[in-house]
Amino acid sequence: TLAAPAIAQSSNPEIRWRMTSSFPKSLDTLFGGAEFLAKRVAALTDNKFQIRVFAAGEIVPGLQALDAVQAETVEMAHTASYYYVGKDPTFAFDTTVPFGPNARQQSAWMHHGGGLDLMRDFFKQYNILSFPCTNTGAQMGGWYRKEIKTVEDLKGLKFRIAGIAGMVLTKLGVVPQQLAAGDIYPSLEKGTIDAAEWVGPYDDEKLGLFKVAPYYYYPGWWEGQAQLSAYINLNAWAKLPDQYKAALQSACAEAYVDTLARYDAVNPAALRRLVAGGAQLRPFSREIMAACYKAAHELYDEISAKNANFKKVYEPWKKFRDDEYLWFRVSENSYENFAFTAAQTVK
Amino acid sequence: TLAAPAIAQSSNPEIRWRMTSSFPKSLDTLFGGAEFLAKRVAALTDNKFQIRVFAAGEIVPGLQALDAVQAETVEMAHTASYYYVGKDPTFAFDTTVPFGPNARQQSAWMHHGGGLDLMRDFFKQYNILSFPCTNTGAQMGGWYRKEIKTVEDLKGLKFRIAGIAGMVLTKLGVVPQQLAAGDIYPSLEKGTIDAAEWVGPYDDEKLGLFKVAPYYYYPGWWEGQAQLSAYINLNAWAKLPDQYKAALQSACAEAYVDTLARYDAVNPAALRRLVAGGAQLRPFSREIMAACYKAAHELYDEISAKNANFKKVYEPWKKFRDDEYLWFRVSENSYENFAFTAAQTVK
Repeated sequence: TLAAPAIAQSSNPEIRWRMTSSFPKSLDTLFGGAEFLAKRVAALTDNKFQIRVFAAGEIVPGLQALDAVQAETVEMAHTASYYYVGKDPTFAFDTTVPFGPNARQQSAWMHHGGGLDLMRDFFKQYNILSFPCTNTGAQMGGWYRKEIKTVEDLKGLKFRIAGIAGMVLTKLGVVPQQLAAGDIYPSLEKGTIDAAEWVGPYDDEKLGLFKVAPYYYYPGWWEGQAQLSAYINLNAWAKLPDQYKAALQSACAEAYVDTLARYDAVNPAALRRLVAGGAQLRPFSREIMAACYKAAHELYDEISAKNANFKKVYEPWKKFRDDEYLWFRVSENSYENFAFTAAQTVK
Repeated sequence: TLAAPAIAQSSNPEIRWRMTSSFPKSLDTLFGGAEFLAKRVAALTDNKFQIRVFAAGEIVPGLQALDAVQAETVEMAHTASYYYVGKDPTFAFDTTVPFGPNARQQSAWMHHGGGLDLMRDFFKQYNILSFPCTNTGAQMGGWYRKEIKTVEDLKGLKFRIAGIAGMVLTKLGVVPQQLAAGDIYPSLEKGTIDAAEWVGPYDDEKLGLFKVAPYYYYPGWWEGQAQLSAYINLNAWAKLPDQYKAALQSACAEAYVDTLARYDAVNPAALRRLVAGGAQLRPFSREIMAACYKAAHELYDEISAKNANFKKVYEPWKKFRDDEYLWFRVSENSYENFAFTAAQTVK
């Protein structure tokens, strides 16, 4: 029902922000997620709040996006917090931690399990406010030049993998390597590295790794989900009218739904193309999974013993995760285990 | 960066809408989801677009919410489309279909798999536009007075279950019953019915069914997810300023994230309380699952043969679902099968 048109009372200002992405434009999933977010904010504010998205390197390098927000070089960034574990491993919890929750469970922890409050409390030290706005779902376990069957096969493996997962694998003899996306293919081709992980079928296909490292392992136990957030400078945030704050918050949630749906929609066909192109799908052996699980939890205990920020998040995070695991085993997981294979097994 | 404050140009009107819910206020998950949505729309429009939420029965009975939107008695409803399969079984696809996708896959189908377009095309016949705004995740398989071990045990079972799932179970001898939430407990207590399904631990606990039907089965194969949408009258929609349309769309996505996260956060403790209170958890046998899977797909072929609306959605839906199932088996499902049990099995 239309009530009497009100006299215009809005004095919402025109605001222009810059959002620096950690990703190149060619990653239409991740870079596209930031563009989607900016478009929705404009639509929600009669185009008065304009956010311009910059690709990695246009303002600052991809892995300095968070620093640029902290310094207020830009008002906001679209990045993965786990790129910054060198500053503090606590950053990882906002994106992903090996053997962590799946996407649904991460979202539950964020919005109704205390996770968002814990992470925002931590980010405040960097003058930053976060809103989850992207998820990739469970990632793949990467590309290997040779088969990896046992824990022994991990020893000395030069593996392009970063952050906490690299620290876990170091315990098992892996030599983690840090390489930008563009350097992965030539390094595998030359044999400078033995293996590399990236994201999942759709994004991985763009790098062409199956041609030089055909063994494609799963699951990516270090990224049972990967959440990306919008990281906003708190001074810039404080200057926003309430309506624009609401617009940013809602647009982030909408971008979250859209990006995850997109990944889930484009990955099946990409995996089929990769396998047709020669990728050899392999599951990690249970021996490897179990050794990594143990190493990961040892690492978390070690970090907790010396880092109060980490411990403060890790303890409630672990309790929440374990509760979620138990519940999801019941209806969700038993449904999926039946349904996903029924077309092949029910005759 | 603040640009020069603009002269107020907005002439957005004050608009008041009524949203009728299919649920009572006591279901804080579902009724609360509609209230969340209304609050966010207000925040996004400087409180100019106000949506008042009415519980089932306040304007129209819960199962007439869609009719009230079609007739423009109210501008919008928060309901589950599968309550209306009596009009046309095609309605089910917007909520859930037995052996359908999980929540992630449903969202992928909706937003990047053509599902939203297909459903909106169908709803247009009812002068309605839909926005997904709630999901419960995989539901439980209901409460039974006696154990159900074989397909034979289903024969003659008076089971409170509705819609397409009731039609599937009829093929196996079940006698489906339609009962409002408040009538389930006394009917089970008296033995008028033998079993009843509702939602999942948190919502089920409110009905107290474990006291009169202690066997709690899983998975709820007829609801591998259940999506609820905001259903909006197209005439009312056409009168909205663009900014308010954007606000409704974004608020629905935000409500979707929030409700699913909430279900996932509250269910683990509810299940624990139910088990402590005497609920006996039981998985459906593989024999029962397989028989239901076959009966469901026979039913879909039968309906497709005589209903062009259904066929038009079912065929692309099935193809999309099957592709999703294959992909999710790889990384997502293998990750979960390991991780969810690792705390118990990795020593």
